[in-house]
Amino acid sequence: MPGNTDLLTLQTPCLLLDEARLRANVARMKAHLDSLGVAFRPHLKTAKSLDVARIAMPSSAGPATISTLREAEYFAAGGVCDMIYAVGIAPAKLGRVSAIRASGADLAVILDSVEQADAVAAHAARSGDAIPALIEVDADGHRSGVAPTDTATLVAIGRRVVSGGAELRGVLLHAGDSYALNDPAAIAQAAEAERVAAVTAAEALRNAGLPCPVVSVGATPTARYARDLTGVTEVRAGVFMFGDLYQAGVSSVAMGDLVLSVLATVIGHQKAKGWIIADAGWMALSRDRSTAKQAVDQGYGVVCDLAGQPYPDLIVADANQEHGIIALRKGSTATLPDLPVGSRIRILTNHACATGAQYDRYHVLDGAGGISAIWPRINGW
Amino acid sequence: MPGNTDLLTLQTPCLLLDEARLRANVARMKAHLDSLGVAFRPHLKTAKSLDVARIAMPSSAGPATISTLREAEYFAAGGVCDMIYAVGIAPAKLGRVSAIRASGADLAVILDSVEQADAVAAHAARSGDAIPALIEVDADGHRSGVAPTDTATLVAIGRRVVSGGAELRGVLLHAGDSYALNDPAAIAQAAEAERVAAVTAAEALRNAGLPCPVVSVGATPTARYARDLTGVTEVRAGVFMFGDLYQAGVSSVAMGDLVLSVLATVIGHQKAKGWIIADAGWMALSRDRSTAKQAVDQGYGVVCDLAGQPYPDLIVADANQEHGIIALRKGSTATLPDLPVGSRIRILTNHACATGAQYDRYHVLDGAGGISAIWPRINGW
Repeated sequence: MPGNTDLLTLQTPCLLLDEARLRANVARMKAHLDSLGVAFRPHLKTAKSLDVARIAMPSSAGPATISTLREAEYFAAGGVCDMIYAVGIAPAKLGRVSAIRASGADLAVILDSVEQADAVAAHAARSGDAIPALIEVDADGHRSGVAPTDTATLVAIGRRVVSGGAELRGVLLHAGDSYALNDPAAIAQAAEAERVAAVTAAEALRNAGLPCPVVSVGATPTARYARDLTGVTEVRAGVFMFGDLYQAGVSSVAMGDLVLSVLATVIGHQKAKGWIIADAGWMALSRDRSTAKQAVDQGYGVVCDLAGQPYPDLIVADANQEHGIIALRKGSTATLPDLPVGSRIRILTNHACATGAQYDRYHVLDGAGGISAIWPRINGW
Repeated sequence: MPGNTDLLTLQTPCLLLDEARLRANVARMKAHLDSLGVAFRPHLKTAKSLDVARIAMPSSAGPATISTLREAEYFAAGGVCDMIYAVGIAPAKLGRVSAIRASGADLAVILDSVEQADAVAAHAARSGDAIPALIEVDADGHRSGVAPTDTATLVAIGRRVVSGGAELRGVLLHAGDSYALNDPAAIAQAAEAERVAAVTAAEALRNAGLPCPVVSVGATPTARYARDLTGVTEVRAGVFMFGDLYQAGVSSVAMGDLVLSVLATVIGHQKAKGWIIADAGWMALSRDRSTAKQAVDQGYGVVCDLAGQPYPDLIVADANQEHGIIALRKGSTATLPDLPVGSRIRILTNHACATGAQYDRYHVLDGAGGISAIWPRINGW
């Protein structure tokens, strides 16, 4: 247990952030992308914090990727002036996009339909704001995007964007299906497929005489395991900064690199059942149960001591809103640790994006088990 | 579609609240509990809003149940002065409890161990604050609590509480396993078991010469279907106010009584797959997938038109952080509705407590499809 008493006195549950691990994760990703000769545009949807953004971004002004216009407003107010809003644009959001751009931030949008291109073009013509737009291209059937070989649609969208005086800035892909892979070689293959799709789409636009300066790809797994990114100009990734049990389960991060943990307090026991009850339920840990489909189901989280070391086989086996039911993994031969009422524990969780969203601040761990800072974060839209 | 244009212009996603349904749900519960001759102590953990609390509580001063001390502080500042914090007390929270009590609110705590009773007694002796404590009794093996027949432990806890000058206020039970039942007769049986456990524990304390003025039970299903509450003084329930797809799946509320829905915008299509993409992902709907275990799996939510009428078989089949993937239920013979980019939809979600927690406000629907008010809500601890 650390000598510092901060972790014994904080009100629980609260969210701890290991700054040294965060910096190491960012440095590793930056070095990898530097070695591939591509720019890095970190995704801030996981952290939603200016303090974290300034560690992750190449400069305090960006570039960055964001997932909500609330993030765009918050980061723009904090001096980030190069952002892509990486969710297909709804026409009714274009006024808000222009307001953020008028505040000085170069905020770009993405789209994958002629309908959206018409809306962006009409807005640009009406407002005089040449909103930059990237065409979303479908890397792997995961979600949105134009098929990379659908040249007719790509070109039609590109022509509509520029027709109204908006700016066609390039193509953007997200190899979301790579999250389901757990073998570095398979992920590298997914990264190569993402690259090929990106380059194919970019060439289709250029062959039609349209500009395509930006070729943007990324997802945490493909960013980490890509071996060659020829033709790509930038990579986006976000959850890698923090990692989580799901990412660890697919080998995308190591357990020892996980940045976030929830500090909780033991509030009871059901000894006959082998249960320890803590004051961190699904509200504190999130409802995310994504490890349920993995080889090792981590329940609602892995229970650690205050130094961050997991207790053998001890997980949050079930959770109510403000109660975590801690028990040994089924079939375990380990011994339930002696954790009297009032004991403090740290819980690693399944999904950093979902857990983070339950909090309005990070308690930043220094190297000695104390709290060195509180970093605010935002939520909502 | 409503004549009012509010739902067409709000930024999405946002959380809609149907005030008329809320008032009807509350009136139904109050009438039922009145007929049983018990007091009502609504649980505010789902709503976390003073505006909702004032509709649900018997008076603007309470009584109320809360799940975090942040709620206690917020509601105390809003004039609620009779609250039970219904999560087993951690010793390190007693100072904060006393601070809230010093502000004028009669805030009680719960406990189920001699260790906690010692902590409460020691705090009372030290601070002079006679914190009221209820002993949590286990109704059904769901989570926390002393077995109702474990007289020795009940009496030992009761004696320790009063030994330090704290106040023994009674017993509290929560029949949490009733959420898994879907038959009114079975739920009525669970309510009767909860009542018997409560009365048994209360009698054990009284027989030992200890006070037990409050006998508090409750969970939304048992509150709704209890037929006799002799010996019980008050009932707690919270999620019934709003209802959700999970509750509808266990017949605890009707689909037509659901109060909350997420307003979202269509941002794209993958026509070959029959997908409609909306700007409400799991961040807006919550990660809760509790209907997955029910007879009808509602995915991440049921998609409705702006009047709140479900489209046949249309659900949010999958979700990423800010993307909902809408599709027809597997095997459906319904036709995918024509919802061009920019179309507005409303989504009913699995779990009101989890969905609500993703927002900092409710947009309150008037009867004409417009927004009559914005009610703030809180989150966090």
